[in-house]
Amino acid sequence: MSDELSQPQLRQTFWTGDYYNEGSGKDGLFDKLKEECGVFGVYRHPDAASLSYYGLHALQHRGEESAGMCVSDGGEFHYHRGMGLVKEVFDKDIMASLVGDIAIGHVRYSTSGDSKLTNAQPLVFKYRDGDLAVATNGNIVNALQIRRELEQSGSIFQTTSDTEVVAHLIARSPKDLVEATKDAFNQIVGGFAFLVMTNDKLIAASDPHGLRPLTMGRLNGAYIFASETCALETIGAELIRDIEPGELLVLDKDGLREERFDHGKHRKALCAMEYIYFARPDSDLNGSNLHMARKRMGNQMAMECFIDADVVTGVPDSSISAAIGYAEQTGIPYELGMIKNKYTGRTFIQPSQELREQGVKMKLSAVRRVVEGKRVVMIDDSIVRGTTSRRIVNMLRDAGATEVHVCITSPPFKNPCFYGIDTPDRKELIASSKTIEEIRQEINADSLHFLSFEGLIEAVGGHNSSDPKGGLCLACFDNEYPTQVNFNGEEKFGCSC
Amino acid sequence: MSDELSQPQLRQTFWTGDYYNEGSGKDGLFDKLKEECGVFGVYRHPDAASLSYYGLHALQHRGEESAGMCVSDGGEFHYHRGMGLVKEVFDKDIMASLVGDIAIGHVRYSTSGDSKLTNAQPLVFKYRDGDLAVATNGNIVNALQIRRELEQSGSIFQTTSDTEVVAHLIARSPKDLVEATKDAFNQIVGGFAFLVMTNDKLIAASDPHGLRPLTMGRLNGAYIFASETCALETIGAELIRDIEPGELLVLDKDGLREERFDHGKHRKALCAMEYIYFARPDSDLNGSNLHMARKRMGNQMAMECFIDADVVTGVPDSSISAAIGYAEQTGIPYELGMIKNKYTGRTFIQPSQELREQGVKMKLSAVRRVVEGKRVVMIDDSIVRGTTSRRIVNMLRDAGATEVHVCITSPPFKNPCFYGIDTPDRKELIASSKTIEEIRQEINADSLHFLSFEGLIEAVGGHNSSDPKGGLCLACFDNEYPTQVNFNGEEKFGCSC
Amino acid sequence: MSDELSQPQLRQTFWTGDYYNEGSGKDGLFDKLKEECGVFGVYRHPDAASLSYYGLHALQHRGEESAGMCVSDGGEFHYHRGMGLVKEVFDKDIMASLVGDIAIGHVRYSTSGDSKLTNAQPLVFKYRDGDLAVATNGNIVNALQIRRELEQSGSIFQTTSDTEVVAHLIARSPKDLVEATKDAFNQIVGGFAFLVMTNDKLIAASDPHGLRPLTMGRLNGAYIFASETCALETIGAELIRDIEPGELLVLDKDGLREERFDHGKHRKALCAMEYIYFARPDSDLNGSNLHMARKRMGNQMAMECFIDADVVTGVPDSSISAAIGYAEQTGIPYELGMIKNKYTGRTFIQPSQELREQGVKMKLSAVRRVVEGKRVVMIDDSIVRGTTSRRIVNMLRDAGATEVHVCITSPPFKNPCFYGIDTPDRKELIASSKTIEEIRQEINADSLHFLSFEGLIEAVGGHNSSDPKGGLCLACFDNEYPTQVNFNGEEKFGCSC
Amino acid sequence: MSDELSQPQLRQTFWTGDYYNEGSGKDGLFDKLKEECGVFGVYRHPDAASLSYYGLHALQHRGEESAGMCVSDGGEFHYHRGMGLVKEVFDKDIMASLVGDIAIGHVRYSTSGDSKLTNAQPLVFKYRDGDLAVATNGNIVNALQIRRELEQSGSIFQTTSDTEVVAHLIARSPKDLVEATKDAFNQIVGGFAFLVMTNDKLIAASDPHGLRPLTMGRLNGAYIFASETCALETIGAELIRDIEPGELLVLDKDGLREERFDHGKHRKALCAMEYIYFARPDSDLNGSNLHMARKRMGNQMAMECFIDADVVTGVPDSSISAAIGYAEQTGIPYELGMIKNKYTGRTFIQPSQELREQGVKMKLSAVRRVVEGKRVVMIDDSIVRGTTSRRIVNMLRDAGATEVHVCITSPPFKNPCFYGIDTPDRKELIASSKTIEEIRQEINADSLHFLSFEGLIEAVGGHNSSDPKGGLCLACFDNEYPTQVNFNGEEKFGCSC
Repeated sequence: MSDELSQPQLRQTFWTGDYYNEGSGKDGLFDKLKEECGVFGVYRHPDAASLSYYGLHALQHRGEESAGMCVSDGGEFHYHRGMGLVKEVFDKDIMASLVGDIAIGHVRYSTSGDSKLTNAQPLVFKYRDGDLAVATNGNIVNALQIRRELEQSGSIFQTTSDTEVVAHLIARSPKDLVEATKDAFNQIVGGFAFLVMTNDKLIAASDPHGLRPLTMGRLNGAYIFASETCALETIGAELIRDIEPGELLVLDKDGLREERFDHGKHRKALCAMEYIYFARPDSDLNGSNLHMARKRMGNQMAMECFIDADVVTGVPDSSISAAIGYAEQTGIPYELGMIKNKYTGRTFIQPSQELREQGVKMKLSAVRRVVEGKRVVMIDDSIVRGTTSRRIVNMLRDAGATEVHVCITSPPFKNPCFYGIDTPDRKELIASSKTIEEIRQEINADSLHFLSFEGLIEAVGGHNSSDPKGGLCLACFDNEYPTQVNFNGEEKFGCSC
Repeated sequence: MSDELSQPQLRQTFWTGDYYNEGSGKDGLFDKLKEECGVFGVYRHPDAASLSYYGLHALQHRGEESAGMCVSDGGEFHYHRGMGLVKEVFDKDIMASLVGDIAIGHVRYSTSGDSKLTNAQPLVFKYRDGDLAVATNGNIVNALQIRRELEQSGSIFQTTSDTEVVAHLIARSPKDLVEATKDAFNQIVGGFAFLVMTNDKLIAASDPHGLRPLTMGRLNGAYIFASETCALETIGAELIRDIEPGELLVLDKDGLREERFDHGKHRKALCAMEYIYFARPDSDLNGSNLHMARKRMGNQMAMECFIDADVVTGVPDSSISAAIGYAEQTGIPYELGMIKNKYTGRTFIQPSQELREQGVKMKLSAVRRVVEGKRVVMIDDSIVRGTTSRRIVNMLRDAGATEVHVCITSPPFKNPCFYGIDTPDRKELIASSKTIEEIRQEINADSLHFLSFEGLIEAVGGHNSSDPKGGLCLACFDNEYPTQVNFNGEEKFGCSC
Repeated sequence: MSDELSQPQLRQTFWTGDYYNEGSGKDGLFDKLKEECGVFGVYRHPDAASLSYYGLHALQHRGEESAGMCVSDGGEFHYHRGMGLVKEVFDKDIMASLVGDIAIGHVRYSTSGDSKLTNAQPLVFKYRDGDLAVATNGNIVNALQIRRELEQSGSIFQTTSDTEVVAHLIARSPKDLVEATKDAFNQIVGGFAFLVMTNDKLIAASDPHGLRPLTMGRLNGAYIFASETCALETIGAELIRDIEPGELLVLDKDGLREERFDHGKHRKALCAMEYIYFARPDSDLNGSNLHMARKRMGNQMAMECFIDADVVTGVPDSSISAAIGYAEQTGIPYELGMIKNKYTGRTFIQPSQELREQGVKMKLSAVRRVVEGKRVVMIDDSIVRGTTSRRIVNMLRDAGATEVHVCITSPPFKNPCFYGIDTPDRKELIASSKTIEEIRQEINADSLHFLSFEGLIEAVGGHNSSDPKGGLCLACFDNEYPTQVNFNGEEKFGCSC
Repeated sequence: MSDELSQPQLRQTFWTGDYYNEGSGKDGLFDKLKEECGVFGVYRHPDAASLSYYGLHALQHRGEESAGMCVSDGGEFHYHRGMGLVKEVFDKDIMASLVGDIAIGHVRYSTSGDSKLTNAQPLVFKYRDGDLAVATNGNIVNALQIRRELEQSGSIFQTTSDTEVVAHLIARSPKDLVEATKDAFNQIVGGFAFLVMTNDKLIAASDPHGLRPLTMGRLNGAYIFASETCALETIGAELIRDIEPGELLVLDKDGLREERFDHGKHRKALCAMEYIYFARPDSDLNGSNLHMARKRMGNQMAMECFIDADVVTGVPDSSISAAIGYAEQTGIPYELGMIKNKYTGRTFIQPSQELREQGVKMKLSAVRRVVEGKRVVMIDDSIVRGTTSRRIVNMLRDAGATEVHVCITSPPFKNPCFYGIDTPDRKELIASSKTIEEIRQEINADSLHFLSFEGLIEAVGGHNSSDPKGGLCLACFDNEYPTQVNFNGEEKFGCSC
């Protein structure tokens, strides 16, 4: 079943990328990992829709493809979803129609094959007990298996989203909403943060390993849920705590009930890439600020590997913090060795191959007078296919850098993610098939260094934990997945929320 | 669950109406009945999408709110739906993506409460045996009852459309597609023309009374289905025949199979309003051209009621044919007594009350030099609430007509439709509570005349039938509905396809 | 200097045509003449902008490419112009900004080479005495000569419109506005209806031969000007009179001053094609209703040429009136032999050549049951290149007509227009090089008949005039232009207002 | 004459600001100075339009309101202008139509009163010798006086732009283009960088004091002109040199001619705010990189004023470099104390007053864990009205900062700019009426420090010059304007290019 784009004008758009993640794949200018989605929820605030708007705007970096929200006025749902950024999808008239004090919202990135409006969340359904809306961030590893079983017993599906599977499971259960939701979560395997809303209830839950972040705050008596704390800060809400692995919080007329849906104990395994790259630098994870954590990664990098160089520079925007940390620790001055054009986003025009070879650079350019004649330490967060790193190294050389030393503030990225991050096939991950020396040659660096597992765990504060992995999922580095990932011989990785 | 409009710009639009049906309700400029939907299907033509585009464009008068089509290339579905006219919803890039040789398409009108993109058809589902698309014209009287039963057994719904109910029934049946479809149609009560498509099959069916029109044609070996013959003519297809009441045609690799789903014999009851008002004048129904049929209604009217007048004029566009017929029969000259502005459709601006009172007329204006000082016979097809008729009569008087005699080419409209036409509540139908003389006074006419049942049946050629109703559903005039219309104490009239 | 389209989306649009004038040139589906522009003006009405909106909407058939209006609040101008229909160009917010009680407005058609927003009218300037806005309908034959002289003395031009030339002439004159305007009009040669507005004055003028229509009405004490009376009727204004050839009306704080700018007497020569084809059937010209005039053309045609046939049909929409006149006079029944799809306007998609050969018809289709086996008289208003006529004749034959007799309610169209109608080169006008018999063969008709000059003049009421041409410009038929048309060896025909 | 917005959708837009300059005036979230415009030119490169696209994109921070370019193919001009960002104004089809090898382009910011498409540049005219296009950055102080004289002698104006005045002066001169252009520049007084293009020539010029930057580069034999060097770097062009004050470069078939238009010698006076705030950090001015210059401003600040604090933070984005410089020099760690949401730009929705008071922050938020319990040095580039500074100081305090010390890397801003920067009235400039201590109280800082004149001149490298002002225009700080600024008793400040 192919693509349905409801906004015809988008069809002409060549999505060249976006803020954190510009372009994709082999042909993109950047081969960064794609973010997976962000969720936001409000329980009992008279400005539920407005708060969701600002909250989703703060989470925009987690998904730029579509945005949506559903609001309950106690009796009825009002909702709107669309392709594009939050500020493009909602306008004043639409906001005015989103009346109510309970809301869930969603921003979404997905692989292009699923890029359709019908997949935009929150998904909204009518079921036995009224209205039901669902928004999620993550990936369900056994979604296809469950879907086949549901189809065999007569279910029909309108989306390709995992989230629809969960809605069916809830509706099929003879139990009440909370128990039905627990049953549903016990049938699915994966990494997910989930918000479920009915006309008068809000449920928030995290998978048994807490793979995807989900946090709770309060604002004037209302409860707020968000994928990252930056969304709480943006709306002036006070951070209460992160949702625990396997936890299921219920908000209804009786207030907050803290329950669990999982049986038995699972190790905590929060996605390390959230620390390294995805989450906004002003967000906190596990009580630790991301800018500070990344600066510590830079410090650690410096302690593991001192390079005799003239300037330190970071690949904007995600590696600036680490670069400053490296500079501080080594005493080598931090400089603005490259600059990113902030007017990015969707653009119709791309340089022709010819112009690209002449050096036309729309997104990132080196600052010639900063790097000319200098030995440069270039800090970046990860290497996926290697193409972006090579391009940046060469750009610095073209601008006159005499040496370019690349320091990556994470271990080599070798394995695909099954929990919501869109990674290429294993064979496209350069670190899964090449040695560090081979990668160094491929990216044309004078030297190449990766942060150690210990350094990473130390930087995120995980060394205080009894867990040798520091409470992190490090599967993309060490291939040790916290859940079963192969069902009926099929592996379903990426994100299909 | 409230409105979802996926195209923000439409929210600002004050839908003042459209070609055949301008504005609606008490506040609209026109209180015409709303058309209910049109369907179009192609089986095995390499240009399936293009033919559907032209076919739907020809059926545009049956639904201006949304349009959609789904095409199968044998393995996969490609589909697109959007709010607006056919020419607005599809563009070159979208058309290029709709690859395949089997297609179904839909144009839709619906009451504003259901005006959402998610209700746009064809509805497309994944089910046990692959992809399933459904498009329909009509109304299912017991849809709510069936929906409740399905919800009780765990079904979830994403639309408020009756069509989704049928898709569930098909998917729930353990039988093969054709038998499952027959089972589904045997559970529903109402008036409908249905197209069902899978990856390699097309099914066309009409309700047991043939309430809604559906016709079949051929083009270069391919089969074509359309709500009206004008769509066949537009694409150059040859008309084969109308689909019979209760008939279910199956097209697959073995060619055409002519089957039936209903048990027992039902009287044919084709909607009389299709003859009187809805269908395009160049379409044929039951082998009879609509322009000619309407002209005969004018002839009949003249025979039943000769008026001593100077000019005959028809309310554009639907009553021009009848007016010419009346003029021909009486010898009173037919004149262009009023003219409709053809640049209608959605518009942002409406005259203020003040300007309206000053006589600002955007849609319809009288031709002063034609009616000034004249006794005018004004032909119209029906009176719903009476507000439009009064407005037009007064407009003719303001332009100088000395007498205005109103001739309606149908019996008084007294009862709501349960089979797909959007009619107001019975209490708003002026003829259900007022005498003809009272209506005459209300609309400020010098005299008022309705066509007799016999005259109507004669004009459409139904007098040749053994059925005293001439094979027509006349329920809106005589309150004799061909099916049960009350289920569990609830009446569901209007259209929710 | 090439095209500037300020609305990028329009660039993709294949303008396949519109209501009266569908497509153009050799490749268009229709080779109808293009309308030239419409003007509308209001002096001292508090709803000046709203009235202009409705007035321009009523004149939309005179120009569908761009629309604009300029309003004066006594001190300042407020204006807006855009590509598209009136209803597309203006929205509520824009209308709300157009504050004032004096207004001029414009709808424009132009040849594609000049299709730019900067040419959209009213043109608005700052000059010595404040603000100046100008809107016109027509063509200035010596505009290029004047423009060259102005450029030689240092003028710069931002548009390719003749209207900018007139604004320069006004600004260059040392006299006061009224005298400066008279001087300007005395320097230009051509056919034009002109509206000039300053912060507190409105001037309306017609060329010395009155080639283009311009009419004046009153509404609640305000003065209204419009290209056609239908715009007055639409807003409820009372028709006062048509502007006389060479007349210049001044409206300022002292009320209405009726002046003249031309010296000496010129014969009246109102464009005959306004009667035959352009003006709306509900408009009056010279006190004569257009529908009635066209019906008389049909009567005349019948008197000049009775054809033994079964049905009379008119090419919609412009020839319906004449067809009814022909039918009335001959007693042959008038029938709806062809029907036009009303959902036309800009569309993205055109049938492929293959589908077109299969007979896909988006705009006009024959009504098979009406013409099948019949001898058909087809009434049309003119033949330009002959391609459209051939297409329609063949369409009627394909639908089963046994004979097709073509009656054209005007003399053969042989010469280009220099006064504002976009005509092809003389060599493309079929009647300028072929005999009637040759044309008949080319269009595949059984017989072909043109209305005589006398019949045309009789039908428009011009036989009462002492002028043998009946007060009409018949140059496109008889090559006798009322003005010099060749300046410095250059002929400038078409429309460049 | 009021606003004309040709893109209706923009009317609904609440321009809340943009990348460097978010919101404006008393009610804006930010009261930053507005950038004034950017120009770009290409002489003889086959990809002239594409290079202009990327060049203008690199200069986008200099003007976000409209963009345009005009290309000459040797015989004809092709041009396009529109409201919005470069990437919004141009699409593939438009780019494909911009054929030629000479081009000039423009990005524009202007005060809202002049925010109309007709003012978008390049302005394009027809004059005596063919086509003429003009693009400029700056302000002409005596434009109104010249305009009045031109109007008196019969000129008409379509824009309110100073640039149209210059085009008139050129067209009025009896001399050839180059001499006419020199004459024009000798009549105007102000600060400007000018590009003039005809069908086969390109002229680049800078005002006699070189107030606005303009630079020249080469790419594969073609000449490139740009307001900033970052645009050269982006397209891979080699920097040749900056245009000298009073210089006029002519490019035609004979290659490059280096001429001057001014008589006598004027002191160089490049706008200091370009160094401090406007130009992109990766641009060079006078051979000095802006990031480095700003870092030196931070160093100077540190030498002039050491503060005993825990963290240094800069207001993003313009003060990051200076903050790093301050941190380096003092040894106090630089931290990410606040973060800007990168998804800004136009947005439909603004927090209500109520939500704003609750602390909803869409653009800038403090990073609580970084500043909590800390003594913070906050580096910013300038204080205009003081409102933004107060807001940021309070935001840092709300996030837990115990002390906030504000260091401004420029002297107090006391006087309006007459050379192209949009500054508020003198009375709104807080430093023109208040002492530093009063400002400190107003912005709620613990201490407030401004960089000295000497420190600023040292940082930009101007201390090597014999000029005590270091070759800078410092009028906004010291009230010593390099030109006469009052003509006929009127002062015209701001930007009206």
